[in-house]
Amino acid sequence: MSNAKENLNATKTRLIAISNAAPEVMRNFSQISKVASSNGSFSSAQKELIASAISVAIGCEDCILYHVNAAQRHGADENALIEVLEVAIEMGGGPAVMYASKALEAFRSLT
Amino acid sequence: MSNAKENLNATKTRLIAISNAAPEVMRNFSQISKVASSNGSFSSAQKELIASAISVAIGCEDCILYHVNAAQRHGADENALIEVLEVAIEMGGGPAVMYASKALEAFRSLT
Amino acid sequence: MSNAKENLNATKTRLIAISNAAPEVMRNFSQISKVASSNGSFSSAQKELIASAISVAIGCEDCILYHVNAAQRHGADENALIEVLEVAIEMGGGPAVMYASKALEAFRSLT
Amino acid sequence: MSNAKENLNATKTRLIAISNAAPEVMRNFSQISKVASSNGSFSSAQKELIASAISVAIGCEDCILYHVNAAQRHGADENALIEVLEVAIEMGGGPAVMYASKALEAFRSLT
Amino acid sequence: MSNAKENLNATKTRLIAISNAAPEVMRNFSQISKVASSNGSFSSAQKELIASAISVAIGCEDCILYHVNAAQRHGADENALIEVLEVAIEMGGGPAVMYASKALEAFRSLT
Amino acid sequence: MSNAKENLNATKTRLIAISNAAPEVMRNFSQISKVASSNGSFSSAQKELIASAISVAIGCEDCILYHVNAAQRHGADENALIEVLEVAIEMGGGPAVMYASKALEAFRSLT
Repeated sequence: MSNAKENLNATKTRLIAISNAAPEVMRNFSQISKVASSNGSFSSAQKELIASAISVAIGCEDCILYHVNAAQRHGADENALIEVLEVAIEMGGGPAVMYASKALEAFRSLT
Repeated sequence: MSNAKENLNATKTRLIAISNAAPEVMRNFSQISKVASSNGSFSSAQKELIASAISVAIGCEDCILYHVNAAQRHGADENALIEVLEVAIEMGGGPAVMYASKALEAFRSLT
Repeated sequence: MSNAKENLNATKTRLIAISNAAPEVMRNFSQISKVASSNGSFSSAQKELIASAISVAIGCEDCILYHVNAAQRHGADENALIEVLEVAIEMGGGPAVMYASKALEAFRSLT
Repeated sequence: MSNAKENLNATKTRLIAISNAAPEVMRNFSQISKVASSNGSFSSAQKELIASAISVAIGCEDCILYHVNAAQRHGADENALIEVLEVAIEMGGGPAVMYASKALEAFRSLT
Repeated sequence: MSNAKENLNATKTRLIAISNAAPEVMRNFSQISKVASSNGSFSSAQKELIASAISVAIGCEDCILYHVNAAQRHGADENALIEVLEVAIEMGGGPAVMYASKALEAFRSLT
Repeated sequence: MSNAKENLNATKTRLIAISNAAPEVMRNFSQISKVASSNGSFSSAQKELIASAISVAIGCEDCILYHVNAAQRHGADENALIEVLEVAIEMGGGPAVMYASKALEAFRSLT
């Protein structure tokens, strides 16, 4: 996680490979992602923060990097990130504390 | 889930029992819940919806009932619920579809 | 689980409701399911058994009912089910034993 | 969970069925269980409480019933149960609170 | 994951250490693994692919390396791997996409 | 995990950052941890081993490092660690074997 940018790039390279290997599944998955992060009652930035909170709660490090970065690109600020991390900690206890600390580190090093 | 109100009441009765059995741990947990669902960048209703989405992603049925109900009491509407369920489905695939359908059913039967 | 048919029907009713509530996400998810269970190196029946094994490993009871039923409709026999349940137990220990026993019960009562 | 004895009996019936269906896997699994719950630095009762705490942390209701019952049969008292439930809540947050409350209810109704 | 061979070797070294530390539990676990991956309705290669799919769905990176490697040694080809990864993505959403991409990378770099 | 001390230090640095970012949530969480690991029917060392076993069962590597280290500082010996790892393997199958081997490695390299 200390090399957030490098790890994020490696993740994106792998995503291209799996998209080429399973094109129809991945095309539909991308469409789900697009709909799930579109502006609505929640903004795109907020939705990417929700995806970040879920990533923390389930302990998926690549997901944390990916969605924290996406939230940031949509304009999310650190206060809003911290709020969703607090919900994740409520819902995930000690392990969520560990992954929330990685999400915060990723947010700060990807700025 | 078809008896959402009854199950929610049974859950709340159990929560009283565990709070009496482990008072110090539960007092601190309640404080975390209170902070995590306070108004901020996200409203309390939105934060309870985020907790609902995490509940769906991890498949905790009592949590779904509890947080969907709390979101509703804070004024969340069905459109906002559906948006967070879409994020949960993006992050949880088929099992999240199953639990999202229970969250929607709970929301409608608890109204 | 003792009322497998009834529970499966309730699940399918809920799936219709979530499909109406989140049509675009669910249309793409259905397409993923369709591709993921199409005939290939593995038959459709085998792929639904793999989905059953994953359902057991992650402890999603609605998913167990749904995919065991789908495997059965595609012609899977009990011996093949038991083999994938053994892999699920290898990968999930005691909890997988519990859910594998529910998958077996569902398979037998849905026949 | 309100019918703990009935649910535990149904679980045990299913365990017999899966043991007959997958005899070699289940024989080895039973041996693991036997070794893992034998007296050592921790007593058998304590080890079944540890299995109960893990069951709570991962949200497996049948496992909760099974291991809480086994702990009780080995002589575990409620204070010791509550202590491991506190560790489970530390490690599992809100969902663990829900399942811990079920473990406590099971312990009391199975006495 | 970029150093799949190195990581796999480190995993195997750790497995020897835990096998020496907990010999009876590990002997029975190895027996379960042997039975669960024996030829039957599914071939050994297919069963290791199923274990790989479960590993992806639950996000265990060492398991991905171990079972993808075992599948490969039993003669699994990439098309069959991709099919089980599609089922894993159906059952695990975004996080499964991330881990599936690691399984694919491992398969290619371990060849 | 081969650099257990270094990784543990990085984890502790991140924990300070998240504690500063979410002070009220983290203060209450620390209080839960303190109560959950206090001497009682189980000693503090035993309770940290239980937290280690849960960490193994759910696959949280930072948690493994943190709680194995805490158990060690409270005087836990390797035999007691191995016993809880056996329970974790009973409850978690193959993935727990992988994470148990990391817990053992961490215990030995942090001594």
